[in-house]
Amino acid sequence: MSKLYFRYAAMNAGKSTMLLQAAHNYMERGMSVKLYTAGVDDRHGIGVIHSRLGIERTALTYDQTTAFDSSILDSNTACVFVDEAQFLTPPQVHQLHRLAHLADVPVICYGLRSDFLGMPFEGAAILLTLADDIEEIKTICACGKKASMNARIDGQGKRVRTGEQILIGGNVSYRATCPDCFYREPG
Amino acid sequence: MSKLYFRYAAMNAGKSTMLLQAAHNYMERGMSVKLYTAGVDDRHGIGVIHSRLGIERTALTYDQTTAFDSSILDSNTACVFVDEAQFLTPPQVHQLHRLAHLADVPVICYGLRSDFLGMPFEGAAILLTLADDIEEIKTICACGKKASMNARIDGQGKRVRTGEQILIGGNVSYRATCPDCFYREPG
Amino acid sequence: MSKLYFRYAAMNAGKSTMLLQAAHNYMERGMSVKLYTAGVDDRHGIGVIHSRLGIERTALTYDQTTAFDSSILDSNTACVFVDEAQFLTPPQVHQLHRLAHLADVPVICYGLRSDFLGMPFEGAAILLTLADDIEEIKTICACGKKASMNARIDGQGKRVRTGEQILIGGNVSYRATCPDCFYREPG
Amino acid sequence: MSKLYFRYAAMNAGKSTMLLQAAHNYMERGMSVKLYTAGVDDRHGIGVIHSRLGIERTALTYDQTTAFDSSILDSNTACVFVDEAQFLTPPQVHQLHRLAHLADVPVICYGLRSDFLGMPFEGAAILLTLADDIEEIKTICACGKKASMNARIDGQGKRVRTGEQILIGGNVSYRATCPDCFYREPG
Repeated sequence: MSKLYFRYAAMNAGKSTMLLQAAHNYMERGMSVKLYTAGVDDRHGIGVIHSRLGIERTALTYDQTTAFDSSILDSNTACVFVDEAQFLTPPQVHQLHRLAHLADVPVICYGLRSDFLGMPFEGAAILLTLADDIEEIKTICACGKKASMNARIDGQGKRVRTGEQILIGGNVSYRATCPDCFYREPG
Repeated sequence: MSKLYFRYAAMNAGKSTMLLQAAHNYMERGMSVKLYTAGVDDRHGIGVIHSRLGIERTALTYDQTTAFDSSILDSNTACVFVDEAQFLTPPQVHQLHRLAHLADVPVICYGLRSDFLGMPFEGAAILLTLADDIEEIKTICACGKKASMNARIDGQGKRVRTGEQILIGGNVSYRATCPDCFYREPG
Repeated sequence: MSKLYFRYAAMNAGKSTMLLQAAHNYMERGMSVKLYTAGVDDRHGIGVIHSRLGIERTALTYDQTTAFDSSILDSNTACVFVDEAQFLTPPQVHQLHRLAHLADVPVICYGLRSDFLGMPFEGAAILLTLADDIEEIKTICACGKKASMNARIDGQGKRVRTGEQILIGGNVSYRATCPDCFYREPG
Repeated sequence: MSKLYFRYAAMNAGKSTMLLQAAHNYMERGMSVKLYTAGVDDRHGIGVIHSRLGIERTALTYDQTTAFDSSILDSNTACVFVDEAQFLTPPQVHQLHRLAHLADVPVICYGLRSDFLGMPFEGAAILLTLADDIEEIKTICACGKKASMNARIDGQGKRVRTGEQILIGGNVSYRATCPDCFYREPG
């Protein structure tokens, strides 16, 4: 039986690079994959999985109305990849879990765990609850320790502690930090 | 800096055994630890961490009003252990995360991930979101595959699919199952 | 297909407790297991897997002449456990790897990685090379950091840096230490 | 204290991509890193870490005479990366372990575990023995299962079972396979 995988990381750890490499591994063996990313993420155009190393690939987009049932599979789909998976709804994660276990197609999701206040993204929380295999993609805080939190910053690099949970942005709006810096940083 | 650890498992995987062994490792080196378990779990008396292998140890109890701030630490506390950690509230998990990172005392939590409907326990979801180190304690389904889900059963061993999230019980009320059996089992 | 698992740890981390718990999980579901330990380890009698928590169970013993081929399996063997697996020979580890993959029976080995000089045990090195799933059972150094090394000590607790690789002993002869203490400790 | 990390994988899993992403994470934060690869690997020129995704970066080369002592560090070196780390000698791995623990600089090594006969590379065996943190970079066999072994093939794609341990090559000379296919494949 196949598995539901969740690879989580703080901002800018290289999640999309990992996804593109894993998809490449399948395609290089002549296998067919489905790539999804969140339509809400338009940083590099809609429907583009983009890595800061300079590689990218087009993808299907999903939003809260997308049904991840077996109709998304072709007869030869070997794996389903979902980027920005923190934006999945709980029912969508249950669908992906069933896809892995009842349709026997591996599903590999990549996403953030927590928002700029240290609270869970709903999609990530349910992925962490159901995934058969959880792995952290590690990155570092400016202090050298492992970064697991996401601090939101304003245009001047100053810490922001109020606002909506979702604000699409990259290095300009977020800084991956370790918990020590996350809690101790003034502002 | 210390870490917040979460060791999760399905029912009856041996979480309490792992906790008692890890606490023993500290005490054997002459270090002092704090043990907590949920007051709501009265299967073996209140304030007892009990392993199905036959070993047990008394513990402090917590409920939703317990404050896990630095006042729970003695000057020589080397580690804080929390069993049945799925019953923690989100603010309590944030407190334990701060205890690890700001008071520099490791905190090791053991608990379930999902309830009998495959939905998250609130404490587990926030532990999975913040923990610096996540590990699964593995056990097996009756079919031989890894069990990650918890099926509730009635007195006749029949699957139960409605009811409250929290129903304290052991082998009589729950069966750890793999996702395939969890979704496919009739009833 | 089944897997070959290797759970490694420094001395006195609780390897035997983990093995006994995992075996209990199988037996509690009515499944049959084979337990092996090294005949050379006579600390608690020959053919006894003993945990410092006070639990123990008899086991088959193996030595360098034991053949781990399919003849060791009964028709209903659900899992093979090997304690003190650092003493396996490379051909025995290859046999166990084939047992998992060709006879489809999971094999779970527990053992040390490195000796008192920081050099590999031969059985551990080949288990680390072939195992489908590797996990560390963690314990702590007296300094509070994770212990991954094994320092040999004499009757007065003084560090010993010469001698044979194999000297069967427990807390009296060995101390699990972190690499910092392992390299820095005088003597 | 810093750690020695070992990320292992079968051939063509994406080890170099992971290395280049992790190094990028450091450099993006303005930190300085040292990159090493084995001089014996000349597939893309000597001293080049090359990813099948099309990215590459120049690196220092090492051979069996390279001393990995603190003289390789600049005052601001934040991390040391070693690609093709299976070619390290045991004393070199001990040096890198001491660099992490005594000079407090993280060392991240990437390499293969086993050769085309399922036997350990010496450098990998000692890295697996000493590393503070071991992670598998996963890839897939043509059959869809996880690949952990490396089958050598000749120009016609036929399995080769005799020869020297070291034969530098990529997709033309090796095929990552699961253990089932590794043992069962005829030829």
